[in-house]
Amino acid sequence: MPHRYFTTEIADGSAVLRGADAHHLSRVMRARCGDTVILCDGNAVEYTATITGFGEECVEFSVEEGYPSAAEPNVEVTLLAGYPKQDKLEDIIRHGVELGCSHFVPFFSRYCVAAPKKEEQKNVRYNRIAFEAAKQCGRGVLPDVAMPLLNFGAVCRTFGQYDLVLFCYECGGEPLRGLLDEAAEALRLTAAPGTSPRLRVAVVTGAEGGFAPEEAAMAAEAGAKTVGLGPRILRCETAPLAVLAAVMTLTGNLE
Amino acid sequence: MPHRYFTTEIADGSAVLRGADAHHLSRVMRARCGDTVILCDGNAVEYTATITGFGEECVEFSVEEGYPSAAEPNVEVTLLAGYPKQDKLEDIIRHGVELGCSHFVPFFSRYCVAAPKKEEQKNVRYNRIAFEAAKQCGRGVLPDVAMPLLNFGAVCRTFGQYDLVLFCYECGGEPLRGLLDEAAEALRLTAAPGTSPRLRVAVVTGAEGGFAPEEAAMAAEAGAKTVGLGPRILRCETAPLAVLAAVMTLTGNLE
Repeated sequence: MPHRYFTTEIADGSAVLRGADAHHLSRVMRARCGDTVILCDGNAVEYTATITGFGEECVEFSVEEGYPSAAEPNVEVTLLAGYPKQDKLEDIIRHGVELGCSHFVPFFSRYCVAAPKKEEQKNVRYNRIAFEAAKQCGRGVLPDVAMPLLNFGAVCRTFGQYDLVLFCYECGGEPLRGLLDEAAEALRLTAAPGTSPRLRVAVVTGAEGGFAPEEAAMAAEAGAKTVGLGPRILRCETAPLAVLAAVMTLTGNLE
Repeated sequence: MPHRYFTTEIADGSAVLRGADAHHLSRVMRARCGDTVILCDGNAVEYTATITGFGEECVEFSVEEGYPSAAEPNVEVTLLAGYPKQDKLEDIIRHGVELGCSHFVPFFSRYCVAAPKKEEQKNVRYNRIAFEAAKQCGRGVLPDVAMPLLNFGAVCRTFGQYDLVLFCYECGGEPLRGLLDEAAEALRLTAAPGTSPRLRVAVVTGAEGGFAPEEAAMAAEAGAKTVGLGPRILRCETAPLAVLAAVMTLTGNLE
């Protein structure tokens, strides 16, 4: 399988790759003129590209007609994750990108043990992790990691952007099965004829301390569906992966 | 919520807890006579237990009538996992126990990068990790980790023990949805009247290198269903969790 790289510099049948990826391709992979790779524009369009030359710190290509990336799920999932301790967020991002999550939004809430610290610096690192994971698993879009929201009110104020918000609560709630079908059906009914919009789903999971009852009430008030994840207590690094895998399974994106 | 401990010494209305857990309860938690905890026999039966005394390195209890553990899924899942590098197997076990997996069987196969080394010692450690995870997430049975099987032939020879074997292949296969319903239905039809046996499912995932085509053919020949996990390439530590979450979702055990 040819290697895959993300670049935004694709136009008129040619493309350029720069930076660390150009170095990787030319020096580490020792690619030569005529070799082919897959270039992805990060917007779910991919190109078969043939190397035409090596510049200083860049690689040049001729590219064929683009085609839609086959790796993107038909749901656009945003994971709103309570900020965990240590480097658990990195693992959540790595696993989440593979499982098809498109956006990550960490947040601080009442029972969070972690506190904001050097977040701008960490955000750069989180986005690099998402970028590397996206390359490795073959994503067609580049998932992004937002700067953390500083309280749960700010989280609830984003709920209007989604067709379905799944608030995963340790005290239980509705089963996930059914909710996704209902939301997809509602979206189909309101869509303009001939269009098939992607279902926008938000998954909200807590940090180590879980959620305060007031936060659960706030989420429900803001339109979230409260869902339970079964009788076993999932750690804050397991719950997001379980829900992402469940959402992808139920929407036919893990097969 | 009261703390939970596993012990096999439960009989005639009394129980004893020994070792590290007894130390934890008496010294770390500073429990006193009259305090209650949940004791679990590791066979999906739980007991509300009241402390009656402290012996040397043990705690004694009076116990009420046992009740079935609510945390056990209605499917008995065995994860047969290609032996990964570094300490990834430990993470797979931790996540897997939370997701309701009952048995773990690591194996070496053709493209495994890891090689057998001090496996007896490691197996003790793996079982301790499973034990700790089971306590933390509230399992009713104690999941076990077997000694690794040394080749893929040995893996295939175990397939007869299961109602359904899901061989997760990076080159794709059937969707998971449907397969579980079919197997559950087949089990219902063959079960003795009045009984409701638990579906025994095996999930087979590869190590970093994936599976050789001959191994895929061998698995199919031995009765496994080849399943695909979608167009994104899952790492060997993500695939087992995704499949376990998918199986639990589809059988109603993640709600």
